[in-house]
Amino acid sequence: MNKSELEEVKSNKKVRGKKVPLKIIPLGGLGEIGKNMTAFEYNDEIIVIDCGLAFPDEDLYGIDSVIPDVTFLIKNKEKVKGIFITHGHEDHIGALPYILKQINIPVYGTKMSLGLIEIKLKDHKMLNDCTLVMVEPGELIKLDNFKVEFIRNNHSIPDSCSIALHTPIGVAVHSGDFKVDFTPIDEKMMNLQRYAELGKRGVLLLMADSTNALHKGYTMSEKSVGETLEHLFSKASGRIIVSTFASNVHRLQQISDCSIKYGRKIAFSGRGMENVSEAARALGYLFIPEDMIISLDEIKNYPNDKLTIVTTGSQGESMAALTRIAASTHRHVHIQEGDMVIISAAPIPGNEKAVSNVINDLIEKGANVIYKAIQDIHVSGHACEQELRLIQALLKPKFFVPVHGEYRHLFTHAKIAQSMGVDKANTFILENGDVLELNKTNGEVTGKVPFGRVLVDGMGVGDIGNMVLRDRKNLAENGIITVVVAIDMKNKIIISGPDIVSRGFVYVRNSEELIDQVRDIVTNVVESCLDRNITQWAEIKNSIRREVDNFVYDRMKRKPMILPVIVEI
Amino acid sequence: MNKSELEEVKSNKKVRGKKVPLKIIPLGGLGEIGKNMTAFEYNDEIIVIDCGLAFPDEDLYGIDSVIPDVTFLIKNKEKVKGIFITHGHEDHIGALPYILKQINIPVYGTKMSLGLIEIKLKDHKMLNDCTLVMVEPGELIKLDNFKVEFIRNNHSIPDSCSIALHTPIGVAVHSGDFKVDFTPIDEKMMNLQRYAELGKRGVLLLMADSTNALHKGYTMSEKSVGETLEHLFSKASGRIIVSTFASNVHRLQQISDCSIKYGRKIAFSGRGMENVSEAARALGYLFIPEDMIISLDEIKNYPNDKLTIVTTGSQGESMAALTRIAASTHRHVHIQEGDMVIISAAPIPGNEKAVSNVINDLIEKGANVIYKAIQDIHVSGHACEQELRLIQALLKPKFFVPVHGEYRHLFTHAKIAQSMGVDKANTFILENGDVLELNKTNGEVTGKVPFGRVLVDGMGVGDIGNMVLRDRKNLAENGIITVVVAIDMKNKIIISGPDIVSRGFVYVRNSEELIDQVRDIVTNVVESCLDRNITQWAEIKNSIRREVDNFVYDRMKRKPMILPVIVEI
Repeated sequence: MNKSELEEVKSNKKVRGKKVPLKIIPLGGLGEIGKNMTAFEYNDEIIVIDCGLAFPDEDLYGIDSVIPDVTFLIKNKEKVKGIFITHGHEDHIGALPYILKQINIPVYGTKMSLGLIEIKLKDHKMLNDCTLVMVEPGELIKLDNFKVEFIRNNHSIPDSCSIALHTPIGVAVHSGDFKVDFTPIDEKMMNLQRYAELGKRGVLLLMADSTNALHKGYTMSEKSVGETLEHLFSKASGRIIVSTFASNVHRLQQISDCSIKYGRKIAFSGRGMENVSEAARALGYLFIPEDMIISLDEIKNYPNDKLTIVTTGSQGESMAALTRIAASTHRHVHIQEGDMVIISAAPIPGNEKAVSNVINDLIEKGANVIYKAIQDIHVSGHACEQELRLIQALLKPKFFVPVHGEYRHLFTHAKIAQSMGVDKANTFILENGDVLELNKTNGEVTGKVPFGRVLVDGMGVGDIGNMVLRDRKNLAENGIITVVVAIDMKNKIIISGPDIVSRGFVYVRNSEELIDQVRDIVTNVVESCLDRNITQWAEIKNSIRREVDNFVYDRMKRKPMILPVIVEI
Repeated sequence: MNKSELEEVKSNKKVRGKKVPLKIIPLGGLGEIGKNMTAFEYNDEIIVIDCGLAFPDEDLYGIDSVIPDVTFLIKNKEKVKGIFITHGHEDHIGALPYILKQINIPVYGTKMSLGLIEIKLKDHKMLNDCTLVMVEPGELIKLDNFKVEFIRNNHSIPDSCSIALHTPIGVAVHSGDFKVDFTPIDEKMMNLQRYAELGKRGVLLLMADSTNALHKGYTMSEKSVGETLEHLFSKASGRIIVSTFASNVHRLQQISDCSIKYGRKIAFSGRGMENVSEAARALGYLFIPEDMIISLDEIKNYPNDKLTIVTTGSQGESMAALTRIAASTHRHVHIQEGDMVIISAAPIPGNEKAVSNVINDLIEKGANVIYKAIQDIHVSGHACEQELRLIQALLKPKFFVPVHGEYRHLFTHAKIAQSMGVDKANTFILENGDVLELNKTNGEVTGKVPFGRVLVDGMGVGDIGNMVLRDRKNLAENGIITVVVAIDMKNKIIISGPDIVSRGFVYVRNSEELIDQVRDIVTNVVESCLDRNITQWAEIKNSIRREVDNFVYDRMKRKPMILPVIVEI
C-alpha cells in the first residue's frame, strides 16, 4: 500500500465506516455556453471547480454579465474549502470578483490563470483581500476528503488543466476545456499518460467538455494556424493588423514569431490586449524581444511593411480596437490601401452580424481582410468527436456527465460516451442545480439546490429581476407615455395638466395632433371619474391607462407603456 | 430589320437623335441583404425592378420591418411606368403595400409572384385598388423607351425570373436572385440559351446576385435535398415534422412526394404555410392529391408513422409553429418520443441563437432533430462562384454592377467579373441612392437621390426616426426615472412631490432607500432653484436631470433616462 492509498484508507475511516456518497452539483455551464461552475461535496467538505460568467443574451437588455447563483455555497460556507480554476477564460474565472465578495475562499490555479485573475481582482480593488494559491500542472492539493490533482491539457490559453478529484469512493475527472494538440506551441502536450494511468486504476466519473461534440473528426493543432500566418506574412507588402482573443497567448506567440521573422515591429492595441500580452510576457508565456515591441504612438515612425498591429475586437465588440479601426474612430490606426487585416478568430454565436459589419467596413476602406470563412486562420480550442472518444478510451469511466454545452451538445456527447461503453443508466445529462449522488455502484439525481442566473448591471449584482427586464423590453419596443395630471381633490377638479410626455414612442414634433388627442382623452377620463365620485388614485390611473392604451393601439397598432402620475393638491 | 429592331429605331427617334444616357438608381439592396429595389430611368420613363423589405437589425428596437425611401419615385411620379417583380420573396415584394399607397403604379410579375402579392395586398385591404399584370417567363412588356423581358431562372421559389431591359442604348440584364439548377423540381431550367443569345448580340450592363459570391464551386441542385429526405423518410418510424420556408414550394413538393410514397398524410401548420401551400396548389405549382392533406384537428386520427406535419418556424421566429411546438405551446402538436423533426433551412444571419434554442428544446423533449449542421437537408437558392462565372461567360457584359449583398459580397463579385474580362473601370460597386449614368461607352456615378431606410412600426411608416430609436435604446439598457414635482410659482414653494416613479431601472420594493435619496436630492435642487429665483422650468429640469444622473451613476454606475415633469400651480 503506497502513501496515497494509505491516506485514502484513513480518509474513509473518518466517515466512521459508512460510505457517504459523492455529490456533484453543477451551478452553471449546463444547457448553456458560459458561467461554468461545479460544486463537489463529500462528507463535510465542498470544493468548487471554476467560477465563470456568461455574456448576456440579447433579451437581457442593459445587462453587463451573468453569473451563477451561489446560494448553495453561501448556505454551506464553512464547508467550502476552495475554488479550483482549470484555466483563465472569462467563462471560467469571470464571476470570481462577485462570488469572492460573497464567500471569501482560497482560489487555486496555475500561474497563467492566476495572472489573469489578478488583473481582474485589481480592477475590483480586492486583490489584497483574496487568497490565491499557485499550483503546477501535476500537483496534488490535499484536503480532508478530497485530493485535487491538476493534469495538464491543451486549450486556447496556456497552462490549462483538467482536474482529477480523488475521493474516498473513487476518482472523478473533470476535463476542463480541452483539445488534444499533438504539436502545441509551448511543446507541453496534454498529459494523456496520466489520463491512461488513472483509467487503468479505475475512474468513477468523467465530466467532459461538450462544446464540439457535434463536430466529427479532430480539432486541428494550433500550429496549423502558424502555417497560414506564415503564408500571409510572406506575401504582405503593407501593414498587417491581426485581431484575436488576448488570452490566446499561443496565437500571439505565432503572430509575434512571424513578425520577427519578417522584421515587423509589433504594437498591441486595446486594453485587454495590452494587459494580457504584458502579463503573459512577465509570467514567461509569451516571448518577444523587448526591441521588437513598440507603442501605438511609434507606428508612424516605421514603414508599413515593418509593422504588425495586434488588436482586440475579433468579435466585433462595439468599443474594441478593431471595431474602432473599422469605423475610423481609432486614435492611432486608420486603414490605408494595402493594409492586410487578419481576423484570427471565429464569431461566437450571436456575434455574426457585428463581425460582418466590421469586415464590410474594413474592405470598403481598402483593406484586404482575411477571415475564417475564406481562409483557415483559426482553430477551435475544444475537442471534436474523435478526441472525446480518445479520452473515453483512456479513462473508461463508470459514470459520465457531459458538461460545457447546450442541451444538443450534452445529448450528443452522452451518445458518444455510451457508444464507447458507458452504461446508459450511468450517463447523466444534468441541469444546473441538480444534485447527483454517486456511490461506487449507483448514481441518482436526488435533489435540487438554488441555481440560475444572477444579472450584473453596473455596480448592481442581482438587483435586476424579471419585472425590470420585462419593463425594459416593453420600453425598448414601444417607448413610454407619461401622463401627469394635478387634481384638487377637495373641489374635484383638474387644476393642472394633463401633461403628456413621451419617450421612444413617436417623434413629438410630428405628432402634435396625436398628443392633443391623448390629452383630451385623459381630461375626459379624469373628469368622468371625478364626476362619478371616484377618488381612488389606482382606479383613476387604471382608467387612464386603459383608455390611452386603446386609443393608441387603434390608431397605430402600438402598445407603449402608459405611466399615469396623479398629483394631489 | 425585324419588328423589334424597327421599334428600337423608332424609340431612338423619340429622343430626337440625341442619345440620352441610361440611369441606374439602386434604392435598396446594396451594402445590405434586403429591401431590394432598383430604378432605371431613360428619357422621360422610369421603371422599377422589385420592391422588397428588410428585416430589422436588433438595434432597431420595436421595428417590424424596413422599407426603402422612395422619395425619388414620388418626385417623378408621372414618369414611373411600373414595378417589375423578379420573384415573390419578402425582400423583393414585401414593401409593395407601403410603396403602392404612396405611388399607385402597375405591378408586373409571374403567376406565383402575383399570387403571393395578392395575399399581401388582401391583408392590407388594398387588393382592389392595385393593378397587377401577369406575365409569362419569356414575355416582353413594351413601354415607350424600355422593353422589359422576363427570362426564367432558378431560385428557391417557383416562377423566378431575370429581367432583360432593352433600351435605346443597349440591353441591361438584371439577374434577379438565381442559381443554375440543372435538375429543377419543376423541370423548368433557367433559360441559359436566352442568356447566350443576348450575350452574343451584346449586353451593355449586367447586374447580378452577389449573395454567395464568397462561396467557391456550385450550389447543389434542389433535387439533392430530395435524396436526403427520401433517406430520412425511409427510416422514420414515428411522426415526421418538417420545417421550411413556406415559399420554397419545390421543397414542399419534395416533402409531399416523400410523404405520399410512404403513405403519410400531410398537415400544414402556421399561417404562412397554410396560405402559401393553398395558393401554390390553386395556382398549379404544388401537386398533392386532395385526400393526402388533412387538417391539424385530424392528426390524432392517424398513427404516428402515417403523418407528416409541415410547419413554419425554421428561423426560430418567436410565434411560428415549430417554435410553439418546441415550447409546448402549440395547440395540436406536442413532441413525443420518436418524433423526427427536420429543419430544412439554414439560419439567416442573426437568427442562429433562436434556431439553436428551438433545436435544444426539441431534443430535450425527445425528438430526433435533423438540421443543416449535421445533415445536408438544405441547399441555397443563390449562385456560387462558378455559376456567377457562367453567366459572365454567356453574357459578356460591357458594364457590371454587383447587387444583392453586403459590401464584401459586392466586392468579391466585382473581382470575379473583372477576372472574366469586365474592365475594372466599367465595374461599379454602387451604394443605395447612387445615380449611375451609362452611355454606350462610358459609365459614371453622377449624383445621389434620397435613399435610406424607412421604418415600419405597427401602422406607422416612417414616423420613427433616430431620436426615437436612441430613446428606445437608452430605455432598453437603463430604464427611466420620472420625477414629478408641483410648484406654487407665486409663493415659490413645492406644494406636492417630488414623486419618483421608475420603470426598467431597479426593482422598486428593494430600493426604497435609493428612491428616498433621489427624492431628497430633487427637493434640494428645486428648493435651491426657487431660493435663487430661478423660475424657468428648463433650468430647473436641467438641474434635476444633472443631479439625479450624477447620484445614480456614482452609486450604481448606471445611466437611466431622467424625465423631470414640473406641474405649475
